[in-house]
Amino acid sequence: MRIRLLGTAAGGGVPQWNCHCAVCRLARDGSGRVLARTQSSVAVSADGRRWFLLNASPDIRSQIESFPPLQPPSDRERGSPIEAVLVTNADLDHTLGLLLLREGEPLVVHASGNTQKSLGVSMGSLLNAFCGVRWVEPPVNPAPLLCRDGVASGMRYEAIELPGKAPRFIKGTVAGSSGHVVGYRITDERTGGRLLFLPGAAALEAILAALLPKSDALLFDGTFWSEREMEERGVGRVSASEMGHVPVSGVGGSLKVLADLKVPHKVYTHINNTNPILIEDSVERRAVEAAGCVVGYDGMELSI
Amino acid sequence: MRIRLLGTAAGGGVPQWNCHCAVCRLARDGSGRVLARTQSSVAVSADGRRWFLLNASPDIRSQIESFPPLQPPSDRERGSPIEAVLVTNADLDHTLGLLLLREGEPLVVHASGNTQKSLGVSMGSLLNAFCGVRWVEPPVNPAPLLCRDGVASGMRYEAIELPGKAPRFIKGTVAGSSGHVVGYRITDERTGGRLLFLPGAAALEAILAALLPKSDALLFDGTFWSEREMEERGVGRVSASEMGHVPVSGVGGSLKVLADLKVPHKVYTHINNTNPILIEDSVERRAVEAAGCVVGYDGMELSI
Repeated sequence: MRIRLLGTAAGGGVPQWNCHCAVCRLARDGSGRVLARTQSSVAVSADGRRWFLLNASPDIRSQIESFPPLQPPSDRERGSPIEAVLVTNADLDHTLGLLLLREGEPLVVHASGNTQKSLGVSMGSLLNAFCGVRWVEPPVNPAPLLCRDGVASGMRYEAIELPGKAPRFIKGTVAGSSGHVVGYRITDERTGGRLLFLPGAAALEAILAALLPKSDALLFDGTFWSEREMEERGVGRVSASEMGHVPVSGVGGSLKVLADLKVPHKVYTHINNTNPILIEDSVERRAVEAAGCVVGYDGMELSI
Repeated sequence: MRIRLLGTAAGGGVPQWNCHCAVCRLARDGSGRVLARTQSSVAVSADGRRWFLLNASPDIRSQIESFPPLQPPSDRERGSPIEAVLVTNADLDHTLGLLLLREGEPLVVHASGNTQKSLGVSMGSLLNAFCGVRWVEPPVNPAPLLCRDGVASGMRYEAIELPGKAPRFIKGTVAGSSGHVVGYRITDERTGGRLLFLPGAAALEAILAALLPKSDALLFDGTFWSEREMEERGVGRVSASEMGHVPVSGVGGSLKVLADLKVPHKVYTHINNTNPILIEDSVERRAVEAAGCVVGYDGMELSI
């Protein structure tokens, strides 16, 4: 399986349009100490020809132009090698890209029941006025991932329900309510390589921690370094877990768990512009690397 | 007045994600025969410090990063020199960028009554769940354009109602129904320079043609070269005027009118990826230039 990290930042990207925090400053100053990052999205393919997007970020246009395998085939005027989009939740930074794919055939979107409902609220009427959507409820047990034409992709997939919150634009729900966030495990049928895609998880519960070793590549939620990061950076008051993200550091943080994990590729993604692991020479970056983990960057590729 | 063309393409940009037409091919092949273009948006300022966006494209993130004057000021952690967005209609390629500016203070959005209603349908609940919007109905007679804090911007502005159609996601309306599209005339109070911003007009009626000479810079609808362009390129069946755009060429086209116009800067923008004027060495490009007009490009600046 070929895995391409199209974007690796959380909502807003790095730098964020209205942010002058330490990280965003370094992303703009030309020093190379922080690489600019677009909003998180991944492309996967078993055969290098038929691709599946994991989330569709608002930066999808530039992400497609930066990766030729996602560009239209040469044998007709319009078309796309993108077979479907698998979304983990309905947050805008994971789904606004769907509206940017509106000029083509009906989109095939894999999303949990709750996320389908949320997407109906946020963009259902817009998508229906253009390409329309064919919704697929992802399986909870491994099943073949099919291409648009029904042909096998060479991959199996399953959705993993994760602790998380409903999107901010859905009223009447609270943080921690279930069924709004999933991750995906995708397995290459030929090589057996297993990708575990978990870009947003509010907590690392025992059941989730037990799943992590059963992967060959792990893309994990790297949104925040610390629980009170937004407040510490002077840009907000909401905590990491209130926003649906387990922090990297700390007693309940993900790094302690990932450090002990025997998985070939352990990669943080969906990284917020306030997170100091983005700074190439920071102590936080060194701590991540000392644990055998990698801070994901746009254009990074894995093969499993 | 400083005028910066942030993006100069119609919806989808150049190249478009799923398009392999002659123009998109040349935009990808590295030959330089077609410059890549992001979706159309303009920034204007009288003092170089406080900026107003004319439409907010889905590419606004990269557009801000490509133009430092739009980046946050250095005296606080979060902020923006973007005072307001003036939108010409509710089409997604002119307004999705509003959702990408959701992390800051309430947005100030100038839009006609009908466009406010359409934007309420497409993204009202989303914007309200984040920054919220302060709506302004633009005046039909020249009035001061105010900054967020109520201070004068040094510019006056007026909305010009144009022939055009309702956005595709609004049901029960037909092409040609009125009140869905405006242009803007913006006048610098110190220099007297007048910008006429007309990125979408379904016809060049007499009343509109009479207005054109009263400008020093004209940014005009360059979506399509010919009335049946989509069909000719094999990518659609809808005509230019059915899509709300007067073509550049032909008896009723804009080029005949613009050719006779004594205005210092005559610039086509909002150019669709099918339009051959995008090809640097095409006969259509030569025809535009022979008429004293310029094919707009990303990063182009004018001063009036």
